[in-house]
Amino acid sequence: MSDAPTDAQQACFEAGIKFGSLYHQFAGTPVSPASTDSLETAMAEAIGNQPHCEWVSVDILDDRVADAIDHDEGYAELTGSLMEVEMRIDYEGTAVRTRMTMEEGYPRMRLVAIEN
Amino acid sequence: MSDAPTDAQQACFEAGIKFGSLYHQFAGTPVSPASTDSLETAMAEAIGNQPHCEWVSVDILDDRVADAIDHDEGYAELTGSLMEVEMRIDYEGTAVRTRMTMEEGYPRMRLVAIEN
Amino acid sequence: MSDAPTDAQQACFEAGIKFGSLYHQFAGTPVSPASTDSLETAMAEAIGNQPHCEWVSVDILDDRVADAIDHDEGYAELTGSLMEVEMRIDYEGTAVRTRMTMEEGYPRMRLVAIEN
Amino acid sequence: MSDAPTDAQQACFEAGIKFGSLYHQFAGTPVSPASTDSLETAMAEAIGNQPHCEWVSVDILDDRVADAIDHDEGYAELTGSLMEVEMRIDYEGTAVRTRMTMEEGYPRMRLVAIEN
Repeated sequence: MSDAPTDAQQACFEAGIKFGSLYHQFAGTPVSPASTDSLETAMAEAIGNQPHCEWVSVDILDDRVADAIDHDEGYAELTGSLMEVEMRIDYEGTAVRTRMTMEEGYPRMRLVAIEN
Repeated sequence: MSDAPTDAQQACFEAGIKFGSLYHQFAGTPVSPASTDSLETAMAEAIGNQPHCEWVSVDILDDRVADAIDHDEGYAELTGSLMEVEMRIDYEGTAVRTRMTMEEGYPRMRLVAIEN
Repeated sequence: MSDAPTDAQQACFEAGIKFGSLYHQFAGTPVSPASTDSLETAMAEAIGNQPHCEWVSVDILDDRVADAIDHDEGYAELTGSLMEVEMRIDYEGTAVRTRMTMEEGYPRMRLVAIEN
Repeated sequence: MSDAPTDAQQACFEAGIKFGSLYHQFAGTPVSPASTDSLETAMAEAIGNQPHCEWVSVDILDDRVADAIDHDEGYAELTGSLMEVEMRIDYEGTAVRTRMTMEEGYPRMRLVAIEN
């Protein structure tokens, strides 16, 4: 059986687009503890430009960045294990809350709740 | 009211992740009519590695690439207006078909159908 | 004839790496006039983390971003025509100044001067 | 003292641009042993589109990709430690050979030789 998508399904689709965009646009960016603040702000504001995006919070974890840095290099490349992300997407009045955190050693993007 | 996500909503979220990933990983890639085939294959196989991705089809349109190329440069940068993408995502038996094509001059990512 | 690279050649190589990195890391980022400031700062600080990079200045041009935005979308994707970049690279005491600006309608990365 | 760049310096600058472009365009791409071939070809052909690029060879190492993959995920994200790259750049008759390989545990981009 095939159905047209509901507003809640559309909202989940839009939420996924934002997560994939944020991750693959910025993965690989050179980052050090001194540059986490500016990168967090830029990532949140960049993805916040996309439609249906109510808010985005990006937390790049200074201590994990510091641990990931080799002495000779002085920077790490941004990857999922160095950050936590939360977003709220609104599609025609249906809101979706999403989150990326580490679970069992891996970054996982999750639908937290659908709110009508 | 807040509900835990259904399988169909999870499938839509996963479908969105794949679209955002594909777009922002590869946007900006130098492309010419001679290199569209290899880029299409690489994009489809790369995103096909992600979980729940049943198949991916990427069509980079040679004629649009040719039109986008300036004589002096010899290549264009990949963007949404130069390609059409279709994907089928399966989450626990619920399948989602999605598509990106041009609509009114802009590339649009769409949920085409949810199949239980 | 083949020679080992001089410090000036190494400096030019490093300068090119920074330009290619900056461009292809951030090309495609969603941008609006309200988010140019945070993106400029993040780009400059990210690339500034790389070795031999003395300073980086990124200017994303609000008026060009505004012109590139379609009413329905509300954002543009970052590309070379929307920004001007200057960098100073130092390799073992040899400095290289570089710049990307528009020339005849296209963004061009240029070596401006080599300073010993 | 400031001098205008020589052809050899320009060639080194162009070589650096290609390396930075290749790295930051494709870092983060989902990759598995089954998809290394298509990604290698696409990377080489994409960067080969850029001016002054005579040839590019990308070798994504299947065994390192396999080692980098977690069982639950089934794929790794492309990064410098998973690949070896060689390029030959020609600028007005001056050729530059460059290479990225692992040195002491880190990927290093190197100028191998300048050939007049």
